Amino acid sequence: MAHISVPEDVPGIRSLALFSPQTAEPLYMLAQVLLRSASGLLPAERELVATYVSHLNDCTFCRNSHAAAARCLLGQDQHFVDDVLQDMKESAVSNKLKALLSLAGKVRVSGKAVTRGHINAAKVFGATDEEIHDTVLIAATFSMFNRYVDGLNSYTPTDLPAYKEMGERLAVHGYSAPKQ
Amino acid sequence: MAHISVPEDVPGIRSLALFSPQTAEPLYMLAQVLLRSASGLLPAERELVATYVSHLNDCTFCRNSHAAAARCLLGQDQHFVDDVLQDMKESAVSNKLKALLSLAGKVRVSGKAVTRGHINAAKVFGATDEEIHDTVLIAATFSMFNRYVDGLNSYTPTDLPAYKEMGERLAVHGYSAPKQ
Repeated sequence: MAHISVPEDVPGIRSLALFSPQTAEPLYMLAQVLLRSASGLLPAERELVATYVSHLNDCTFCRNSHAAAARCLLGQDQHFVDDVLQDMKESAVSNKLKALLSLAGKVRVSGKAVTRGHINAAKVFGATDEEIHDTVLIAATFSMFNRYVDGLNSYTPTDLPAYKEMGERLAVHGYSAPKQ
Repeated sequence: MAHISVPEDVPGIRSLALFSPQTAEPLYMLAQVLLRSASGLLPAERELVATYVSHLNDCTFCRNSHAAAARCLLGQDQHFVDDVLQDMKESAVSNKLKALLSLAGKVRVSGKAVTRGHINAAKVFGATDEEIHDTVLIAATFSMFNRYVDGLNSYTPTDLPAYKEMGERLAVHGYSAPKQ
């Protein structure tokens, strides 16, 4: 049961958005801009960074929903999601994406854990300033969402088909705050 | 020097906002709603939570700028800021605010670090669901801002008068994304 009185049976952040629509508006706007921007990183790569950070933060709701969205966007490459969650460095994603995922993992620990070496490792494989900026901000943003969802103990579904449906909706429609 | 090409000499998050105006818009909207809402917690208390979390995350720019805003909003009680940063539990703030600051400190570590006991400790001293929600989201949001500002190594002024001026501006005008 959630720590505050939110609508029952509404999963994860949606229940918190219904409790607090005034904060939901900028939070969903931020998710839409960061995870669906058409410039630089692909939406599938953005969802993969979100999934990886949520996994390391042990946030089941965020990991499962964004993993489902990433699978849907990746199509025939959807196995990348489980490969990255199992062993990112040995996965088949590009060296650039591996360097960006490593950077995201450092941001997750602390902003101060990022060194010039982590940035250069991404630049060597062709990452642009925009891609580095977006990776750092996605990792920081999911350091927020994970804490928001778990800190208030919001409802986390346990059946995987529920997440598959959620992922398809997020892949097709993106992010917008739920209506009252 | 920042890890990406942002305008030089523009401090902290403002330099990142000029680099990425499309993400700055929801980030500043979120700060304005969360730190200036007139319902439940006072703006000074909201800034104190932001300052406390940024202090524990060792984010000098966020700690100093929000401490300055909190001092300005607290007026004759401005010593609360240094008291809380020095020894929160022994400070003269209310028991309710101490319980909420403790809760924020747990969220900073991880959403999963929050127990029903931390929530009940705040409720015993009269904290409402709205105040608990806002405290958790402020702590989560500054877990993001701190990582964003330090993860990209944005410019952190070292002279305290610069922060005093910043704090006065934030106390009077609130938060809005800088114009290009």
